Amino acid sequence: MITQTSMTDSVEGESLLANYLRDARQLVIGDIRSMLPDRYRSVLYDIMLDYPLRTAKALRPALCIAICRAFGGSLQDALRPAAVIELFHNAFLIHDDIEDGSKLRRGEPALHRKYGIPIAINVGDGMLALATRSLRAGTTGLAPAIRERVLDIVDEMGIESAEGQALELAFTRWGHFKLTDRDYIRLVYKKTCWYSFVAPLLIGATIAGADPAVYVPLRKLGAYLGVAFQIHDDILNLTGAAEPYGKDLSGDLKEGKCTLILMHALRSANATDRLRCEWILRKPADGRGEADLRTLEAVIHKHGSIDYARAAADRATGLAARTMDRSRDWLLPSTHRDFLEAVLGYVTGRDR
Amino acid sequence: MITQTSMTDSVEGESLLANYLRDARQLVIGDIRSMLPDRYRSVLYDIMLDYPLRTAKALRPALCIAICRAFGGSLQDALRPAAVIELFHNAFLIHDDIEDGSKLRRGEPALHRKYGIPIAINVGDGMLALATRSLRAGTTGLAPAIRERVLDIVDEMGIESAEGQALELAFTRWGHFKLTDRDYIRLVYKKTCWYSFVAPLLIGATIAGADPAVYVPLRKLGAYLGVAFQIHDDILNLTGAAEPYGKDLSGDLKEGKCTLILMHALRSANATDRLRCEWILRKPADGRGEADLRTLEAVIHKHGSIDYARAAADRATGLAARTMDRSRDWLLPSTHRDFLEAVLGYVTGRDR
Repeated sequence: MITQTSMTDSVEGESLLANYLRDARQLVIGDIRSMLPDRYRSVLYDIMLDYPLRTAKALRPALCIAICRAFGGSLQDALRPAAVIELFHNAFLIHDDIEDGSKLRRGEPALHRKYGIPIAINVGDGMLALATRSLRAGTTGLAPAIRERVLDIVDEMGIESAEGQALELAFTRWGHFKLTDRDYIRLVYKKTCWYSFVAPLLIGATIAGADPAVYVPLRKLGAYLGVAFQIHDDILNLTGAAEPYGKDLSGDLKEGKCTLILMHALRSANATDRLRCEWILRKPADGRGEADLRTLEAVIHKHGSIDYARAAADRATGLAARTMDRSRDWLLPSTHRDFLEAVLGYVTGRDR
Repeated sequence: MITQTSMTDSVEGESLLANYLRDARQLVIGDIRSMLPDRYRSVLYDIMLDYPLRTAKALRPALCIAICRAFGGSLQDALRPAAVIELFHNAFLIHDDIEDGSKLRRGEPALHRKYGIPIAINVGDGMLALATRSLRAGTTGLAPAIRERVLDIVDEMGIESAEGQALELAFTRWGHFKLTDRDYIRLVYKKTCWYSFVAPLLIGATIAGADPAVYVPLRKLGAYLGVAFQIHDDILNLTGAAEPYGKDLSGDLKEGKCTLILMHALRSANATDRLRCEWILRKPADGRGEADLRTLEAVIHKHGSIDYARAAADRATGLAARTMDRSRDWLLPSTHRDFLEAVLGYVTGRDR
């Protein structure tokens, strides 16, 4: 169990991370199951469990639970919001996979490849509706002002995520290729950081009744963690082995996805190379063949763009580590704080 | 203006309906505009206005405003929830149009035909997030218990709509063709009645502080109106002229949509005809050619299925009319009640 006592008994480092994640995931999946009405299972609700039941870390709900407990809040209060964060995450993944034309998710076919785009869109919409309702229904025990603040954060999360996705689609679909690193950071902050790190941390702290003064450092921590996480994800997509990674290798290039790597390469390339790359990126995803991907890779390697991205990820990691260190001013020692520190290592050293 | 005074000045019947709808629509569009943040307009927020600004009646928000005012509630309190209902409606339309493979919406290309499926999915998601946030942010002036009840109804609306869409997709995509009239009514109740009639009426009445005893008749009124509306919509799709209708004529057959008409025909057909029809319906929408549509139409006409549907719509209209008559026990005379009665005529006699 993910309780103070049992968690302090467990060993340090990687197994603390693995154990904490496993325990949190089990609780969260159980709570998600309890949200599903006992009707229309085969055409709607059972399909909602498809992504959550695939092999996944369930990092986001664990973060929410850990920060809440680290601030002295209860597991009971944090569980429903944490489970709802996981539900939102999976609903976003379903729609993103359609939008990005992704073929694989967690090593299995993307949901729209199993059930078709229409059913996948509707299952995602149903999950958003269920998440919203379950959050409100499952938090009536919180103090009204705290509950309102939690609901505000979740509302904000939906907006930020849609804006982030819009910026990314503008890149891939409308050829807005002239992005600076700042533009990229803004995109990632909205698209990844918010629902993966900022919202789980803010929600967990809010539930525990933490002093609002910590919202600013928590927001920063979430941003740094998210940026490091996303850049590493992008590097892994280009360099990782397909199996442990569980997504299409070089899928980002195939999808024409906006990454720091690709943007650095575009910016550094001479006019001929840049025009050639942009011409390739303007093709529909299905139109980019192996030769196109090799061309993009060549330009990326020519300009050391992967090393450039690695350095940027390291800077973000450094900032996250410094913010985490400072959190010792307001977070008492606990297994939960240890877990948060272990997450920092995972985000930047993971092989998933 | 949609105020008691100016509305009582207007003439009765059709022009009351038209004027009330026009006034409500103007207020609602204005409120929706006020919700849109002043950023990322071209890639996200401006596209949210695309469907709402097309020629449309905006019936749902007008219903919400009218029932609220008929119960003595204020326009000010009803406007935000009404505008949010319109936003939800248009978000559902965007996703439904993708799911159904619709080509036209209100006489123009469906959103995914203008911007592509990825952007259309994300704009729909953004609208759902914006609607949820704007509803909470814009109703803080209501009594807390009333606000909670309104949010509960909106949560329920999201669930019911996703379930209804799941049932319809099970018909069109998975070939669940053996539906009874009861099954069809349940599908329409969830997919159409809830967000188009039940939710606007319940929300409007709740905001006005109406006695909860009226929820049951209002729910019934919404159900009858919705069923009559949907069956008429289905009949129009087969028999109406394309231009005033604004959607693909016979688009329902092309999409293999579940209608009372088609289900009656399938049920009444002999084994040979039924197998032939089911074989056609199992094809992907793109695979159904003109000859297929003619075959379906022939079976429909052979069994008088359009007349059967018309009779069913008339029964629903009769039930709606009776429920509306009884509402005179608890709704005082007003322009707003007159508008609600005019809606009854519109739903069943409209040519759209």
